[in-house]
Amino acid sequence: MKELKLFCTHCKKEFEIEEFLVRCDICNEPLEVEEIKYGNIHEGNSLKQNIFERYQEFMPFENGNELISMGEGFTPLIKSHYLAEKYSIKNIFFKNEMQNPTWSFKDRGTSACLIHAKELGYKKIGTVSTGNMAASVAAYGRKNKLETFVIINKNMPEEKIEPIAIYEPHLIKYDGDYGNLYYKSLEIGKDNHIYFMNSDVPMRVEGSKTIAFEICEQLDFIMPDYVVVPTSAGGNIRGIEKGFREFKNAGLIKSIPKMIVAQAEGCSPIVKAFENKSERIERFMNPRTIAHAIENPLPPSGNQVLRMLRKNSGYAVSVSEEEIIEAQSLMAKEGIFGQPASAVSLAVVIKIRKGEIITSEDSVVCIVTGSGLKYTEVLKQHKIKTEKADQMNIDRVITELKI
Amino acid sequence: MKELKLFCTHCKKEFEIEEFLVRCDICNEPLEVEEIKYGNIHEGNSLKQNIFERYQEFMPFENGNELISMGEGFTPLIKSHYLAEKYSIKNIFFKNEMQNPTWSFKDRGTSACLIHAKELGYKKIGTVSTGNMAASVAAYGRKNKLETFVIINKNMPEEKIEPIAIYEPHLIKYDGDYGNLYYKSLEIGKDNHIYFMNSDVPMRVEGSKTIAFEICEQLDFIMPDYVVVPTSAGGNIRGIEKGFREFKNAGLIKSIPKMIVAQAEGCSPIVKAFENKSERIERFMNPRTIAHAIENPLPPSGNQVLRMLRKNSGYAVSVSEEEIIEAQSLMAKEGIFGQPASAVSLAVVIKIRKGEIITSEDSVVCIVTGSGLKYTEVLKQHKIKTEKADQMNIDRVITELKI
Repeated sequence: MKELKLFCTHCKKEFEIEEFLVRCDICNEPLEVEEIKYGNIHEGNSLKQNIFERYQEFMPFENGNELISMGEGFTPLIKSHYLAEKYSIKNIFFKNEMQNPTWSFKDRGTSACLIHAKELGYKKIGTVSTGNMAASVAAYGRKNKLETFVIINKNMPEEKIEPIAIYEPHLIKYDGDYGNLYYKSLEIGKDNHIYFMNSDVPMRVEGSKTIAFEICEQLDFIMPDYVVVPTSAGGNIRGIEKGFREFKNAGLIKSIPKMIVAQAEGCSPIVKAFENKSERIERFMNPRTIAHAIENPLPPSGNQVLRMLRKNSGYAVSVSEEEIIEAQSLMAKEGIFGQPASAVSLAVVIKIRKGEIITSEDSVVCIVTGSGLKYTEVLKQHKIKTEKADQMNIDRVITELKI
Repeated sequence: MKELKLFCTHCKKEFEIEEFLVRCDICNEPLEVEEIKYGNIHEGNSLKQNIFERYQEFMPFENGNELISMGEGFTPLIKSHYLAEKYSIKNIFFKNEMQNPTWSFKDRGTSACLIHAKELGYKKIGTVSTGNMAASVAAYGRKNKLETFVIINKNMPEEKIEPIAIYEPHLIKYDGDYGNLYYKSLEIGKDNHIYFMNSDVPMRVEGSKTIAFEICEQLDFIMPDYVVVPTSAGGNIRGIEKGFREFKNAGLIKSIPKMIVAQAEGCSPIVKAFENKSERIERFMNPRTIAHAIENPLPPSGNQVLRMLRKNSGYAVSVSEEEIIEAQSLMAKEGIFGQPASAVSLAVVIKIRKGEIITSEDSVVCIVTGSGLKYTEVLKQHKIKTEKADQMNIDRVITELKI
């Protein structure tokens, strides 16, 4: 590892990066890698280099040699050709994280954690997740020949488990308060020397920085006004914002976009605290949303996200189930089929465009977090038009087509 | 378009590239764009350029300006760390086409067809498909604001239709011989000015060339001995082989890998004809395989694939359903979860490694065509180990983990 410190995001206490540490032992707030001040992009053929080689000067590890990369990152930034016009916004871009090895942004953070875990000598890794992260950790664990433990909720339906089980991790069903398991898993990990790469551990945040780095390159270093991120634990939005901050430190960009936390009304602890101008997240009671991937009632990085938003002059906005379904359908008009959680960012943009936050002069980037194929059952809730013509013969088709 | 000719792959009759032509009017064999003789790679930042910009000197269109790209191609080439050792093969690489915008290789050909269709002034596009191609054409058609017609089999289950319908094409259910619909759709297209970008039309073959181009770059222009391609209509393997041929013409590589057609025993018309040393494909009766994506009983490019294999000294090999399931599971040990059709290439490698074709000195590239998330039902056929511990409390978990 480079000579960098970890520090508490709240009380600023220093910690060693050569250990696997996640929370401050004083205030229990998340730890974060010291901000990087200088650096440059290592341009190379991205068909051959990986994201950590390209952005090595901004990563806490010397190099990514420890990682068996699977081609994470380098995802497209897709410009809207329909929605920007419809909602009179200068630009809407979609950062399409569905084109990752396990079809979600999680692969970036998983890779970063793996480099750290291997450098620290860990032979076992684990995670607590109900979806994207479980698949990502299971796939990378298997590929990197590490014993992998995935703790899942006992109520998870079999058809959701199978696409994780195919990678053959140790799958452990857990019956109990799933929110507390985040902390419990860190204890289990400590006792058993398992690197639990949960959703907002410091290296996962480092991995998410690469989303910001790529956006900067893809927009020729001219920054959008807003970046909207579907937010669950808070690790991804923290990483993206940190990435922009470090590129600004290095003089690669002039300003940092305003960050917007996007949540579902059915589970919106960060939005609630933000609106109440509270400094601390409270557990969201009876969470329930189709955006399962961001259904986290007590986000472990919630307080830090609130602090970040204040410094960044950002926002936190929630949307209804109907708005999420509508946005999922609208995003498909741009050729992008994301899981419901992925559509929450667009739903938020549409909602706040009606108010004062986003104007017709603004450029917005929506993070599309994971593939729509991960949860196709939700499509039953769409009013999808299929021209049902079971009795149709070929002449009828021609007639149909001639219309 | 560049000043290139189309010619019949069989009788060599010439045709104009400025028209949408698919089959020879004399012998009904597929048409193909004239082989390109010279060219170079336009290296650029692949975070910002598209595949047709990078390989523009090898594409039949002047540039890709007509296309609203969604970031197709530039997919990873993943080296095996487990299977190569297990089966004593020098190298096995997986070209992971699951990281495309609609999670299959089809997006490359769809994009190439779109450029051609737009240049020719088409406002309507269409396809005949039951899976990957339908999603790809529907997504790109929507993104590129073209009226899109997708003809699907009336027996297609609703849960398979929905992830295509989300892009809102005209979905037309068809009851009849689906094999003949390939030809019928071309007639419908002609009458109604619809560009039916079916699986082996000349521009789709051009799109598939980019798979070969990327493999060359990713292997530093040192060629593998074999490239194994799950084969249905035959368009993809034709394109990949043509890509290698054109890079050899241009002096970028010294040799062309041997191509291997991979099919399921339950639908293996090309393998059957190859083994019988026949020059013509016969319709495969009662096709039935879990590898739905390559279940084509009368591949329209079948005869041309046989001709190509002869020139290339290639092979055609089929595998059983059990071998496909086994290979799908083995591929997941490399972190790659492909649909059953994607696993057919690895299944073929394992099968022929037992014989004389592949030796321990050989390097092999397996094309992984589409995402495992497209057909998760098949996972029920896997013997997946889940540690069922519904009654497990946290202490039990710790005990479990300490083992």
